[in-house]
Order: sequence, then C-alpha cells, then structure tokens
Amino acid sequence: MKLVTAIVRPDKLNEIRNALESYGVQGLTVSAANGYGRQRGHTEVYRGAEYTVDLLPKARLEILVSNEWVDDIVDVIIATANTGRAGDGKVWVTTVDEVVRVRTGERAEAAI
Amino acid sequence: MKLVTAIVRPDKLNEIRNALESYGVQGLTVSAANGYGRQRGHTEVYRGAEYTVDLLPKARLEILVSNEWVDDIVDVIIATANTGRAGDGKVWVTTVDEVVRVRTGERAEAAI
Amino acid sequence: MKLVTAIVRPDKLNEIRNALESYGVQGLTVSAANGYGRQRGHTEVYRGAEYTVDLLPKARLEILVSNEWVDDIVDVIIATANTGRAGDGKVWVTTVDEVVRVRTGERAEAAI
Ligand SMILES: Nc1ncnc2c1ncn2[C@@H]1O[C@H](COP(=O)(O)OP(=O)(O)OP(=O)(O)O)[C@@H](O)[C@H]1O
Ligand SMILES: Nc1ncnc2c1ncn2[C@@H]1O[C@H](COP(=O)(O)OP(=O)(O)OP(=O)(O)O)[C@@H](O)[C@H]1O
Ligand SMILES: Nc1ncnc2c1ncn2[C@@H]1O[C@H](COP(=O)(O)OP(=O)(O)OP(=O)(O)O)[C@@H](O)[C@H]1O
Ligand SMILES: [Mg+2]
Ligand SMILES: [Mg+2]
Ligand SMILES: [Mg+2]
Repeated sequence: MKLVTAIVRPDKLNEIRNALESYGVQGLTVSAANGYGRQRGHTEVYRGAEYTVDLLPKARLEILVSNEWVDDIVDVIIATANTGRAGDGKVWVTTVDEVVRVRTGERAEAAI
Repeated sequence: MKLVTAIVRPDKLNEIRNALESYGVQGLTVSAANGYGRQRGHTEVYRGAEYTVDLLPKARLEILVSNEWVDDIVDVIIATANTGRAGDGKVWVTTVDEVVRVRTGERAEAAI
Repeated sequence: MKLVTAIVRPDKLNEIRNALESYGVQGLTVSAANGYGRQRGHTEVYRGAEYTVDLLPKARLEILVSNEWVDDIVDVIIATANTGRAGDGKVWVTTVDEVVRVRTGERAEAAI
C-alpha cells in the first residue's frame, strides 16, 4: 500500500479530483497548506497577480492507493496539475504498513 | 517507531482523544481536513443533514507510537471512531525512521 | 529521499524558515495544526498566558530532503525551535519512495 501526497495549486484541485475519479480513485483527503519552492526572491503568479514568492496557498492531497496503481495515479496528478509555470507543485510517495476502514475493520487493499 | 494517521468524523474527536489518553497516549497532533470516500453520488449524513458526498469536513489525527503499541492504538481509534455509518474514516500506519523531542534532543522511544 | 515533519511553536516559524533557507533548503510546506504533549493537566505558556495543556496551536512543517542532508536539517530545526520550555515540539523523519516536480516531471534528487 502506498500514500501519494501532492502539493498543488488550489485552483487546480477540482480538475485533479475529477481526473482521479475518472481514473477510478474512490477516496481522498484534502487539507490547506502554504509553501514555497525554489524561487525565493523570484516571482510566482497567484490569482493573476505577481508575488515575490513567500508562503503561497497550496492544496495538500493525500491518496491511499494499492502498489499497482501508484505510478498511474502520480501521472494523472502531474498531467492535470501542470501549467508549465513555477509553483505547479510537488508529488511524493511513501510506503504504508497498514490501512483500516473504520466502519468495517477491513484492512489492506480491501480498505481503500 | 510508527506514525498512526487517522481521518475521522470531527464530532468524534473528543471521544477518540479521551480513549487514547485512557490507553496511555501522551501526545497527538490534530489538523483540519476534508475528504470523501467510496460513496460518490451516494449520501453521507453530517450534522443531521444528508449530503451528496463531496468534500466533507474530517479531523486528521497523527500519533507517534512505539512499535509494540501500534496495534492497540489502531484498535482504540477504530472502536471509538466507528458509528457503523458510511464516512466513519480511515486509519493508516507508516514507519518512522527517527523522532526527536525538540526541548531535550531526546530521540526514538524516549522522544514520545 | 526523506520527509522531515516538524510540529513547532507558531511564533518560531519565521526563525526556523530563515535558518533553513540559510542552510540551503529551497522549499517547504507549512500547515496549521493543534496538539498536546505529555503535560496533560500541567500548563504550557502560549502568547504570555498559561494554559492547562489541551490542544494548542502548532505549525506543521514538511521538508523533502536528500538523505545526506537530513541529519543537518533536523539539527537546524531543533536548534532554532528550542526555547527550553515544555511544548517546543516534535520532529520526525520518514522515508520517501519517490518525489516528482510537477512542472518538469523531474524525479528524485532533481525534484527537490
Ligand atoms: N523541498 C520541499 N519540501 C516540502 N515541500 C516543498 C518542497 N519544495 C516545494 N514544496 C511545496 O510544493 C509547493 C510548490 O513548489 P514548487 O512547484 O514551486 O516547487 P519548485 O521546486 O520551486 O518547482 P518550480 O521550479 O516548478 O516552481 C511549495 O509551495 C511547497 O508547498
Ligand atoms: N483512498 C483514500 N485516500 C485518502 N483518504 C481517504 C481515502 N478514502 C477515504 N479517505 C478519507 O477518509 C475519509 C472517510 O472515508 P470513508 O469512511 O467514507 O471511507 P470509505 O472507504 O468510503 O468507507 P465507508 O464505506 O465506511 O464510507 C474521507 O472523507 C477521506 O478524508
Ligand atoms: N506522540 C505524539 N504524536 C504526535 N504528535 C505529538 C506527539 N507528542 C507531541 N506531539 C505534537 O508535538 C507538539 C509539541 O509537543 P511537546 O513539545 O509538548 O512534546 P512533549 O513530549 O510533551 O515535550 P515537552 O516535555 O518538551 O513538552 C504537540 O502539541 C503535538 O502537536
Ligand atoms: Mg517553485
Ligand atoms: Mg465512505
Ligand atoms: Mg509537552
């Protein structure tokens, strides 16, 4: 089991969610975050205005997926989140030891 | 060392915290999240009203625990978070390489 | 590749960010959290006032770093986040399987 975490532009969230659902992703968790990347002192565009990159609003997505789907799901996120401009985001993958569905107690693949 | 992450109903947070404290958990981190599970197009009840499941408010818990306690702590969370209704949540466990208590510099088991 | 997660005092965030930038960290993600540590029933000082420790506001930092930098970066965080008082925070390190820069598709070390 893997956990895919993605930091993306907030205004890309709906498009990413729709693409993930089309692919077959049946659940995800979103939280609000702020961040910056390599452009310290340079600029990033947010809602049409240029900012000296400080902490800009980002959406943080978490998606539990089975090992066999992880590469495709990362590709779906990148393809949808990409605008070609600085600040598009970062995606990372970690290994999960165990997952449980609270309602049923199901574990592993059956839990996602 | 393990990190237990749990996405649960916000209105279950206090009960879960109390159960964890009774078990002996001495610290935890909570953040706000939103999410959905498998019921896309179906309904989930939140604060007494039915919603077509979109992004519903959830609480995100993180608990650093020693390996020997992890199974019990997952069980405590599941037992307390469970209502039997869709949307009860998801719990997952990851392996942590290192933990440090900032005030003292203590590491590993001594740090939690 | 490693992910360093740190739960710190919110009023230490700027100082920690500056120290990390001086060290060479080129990006990070921050989110709001609440938490408590071992002082249940004891007190922690927040904005000059004493609180019975319940859920106090904390900043949650995430920093993707290459393996060779991880020890130094944890040290920089601890050195800067430490006030010597209860509630200074917790830092932990997990292993990351894969990182991707969304704009370019670069992976691994090249992506951070
Ligand atoms: N090393 C890092 N650790 C944790 N989060 C990061 C890191 N680098 C970037 N992020 C997060 O990803 C968000 C987007 O980063 P960004 O896309 O600007 O990365 P970048 O490496 O500067 O790429 P680009 O050159 O395309 O701008 C940041 O706002 C931050 O939340
Ligand atoms: N695959 C997933 N990845 C990440 N987070 C998830 C995933 N599935 C669910 N979640 C999170 O858990 C929360 C609760 O999910 P939920 O309990 O509805 O899961 P479910 O699998 O649909 O189970 P149930 O059938 O009991 O509703 C979601 O709102 C979301 O935040
Ligand atoms: N076991 C834990 N799991 C997850 N998060 C924790 C844990 N313990 C502490 N935290 C987080 O770290 C924050 C700061 O904890 P704190 O510094 O009070 O830890 P502590 O172990 O009580 O150390 P101290 O004795 O220095 O106060 C908490 O508010 C919480 O967000
Ligand atoms: Mg950038
Ligand atoms: Mg569900
Ligand atoms: Mg404490």
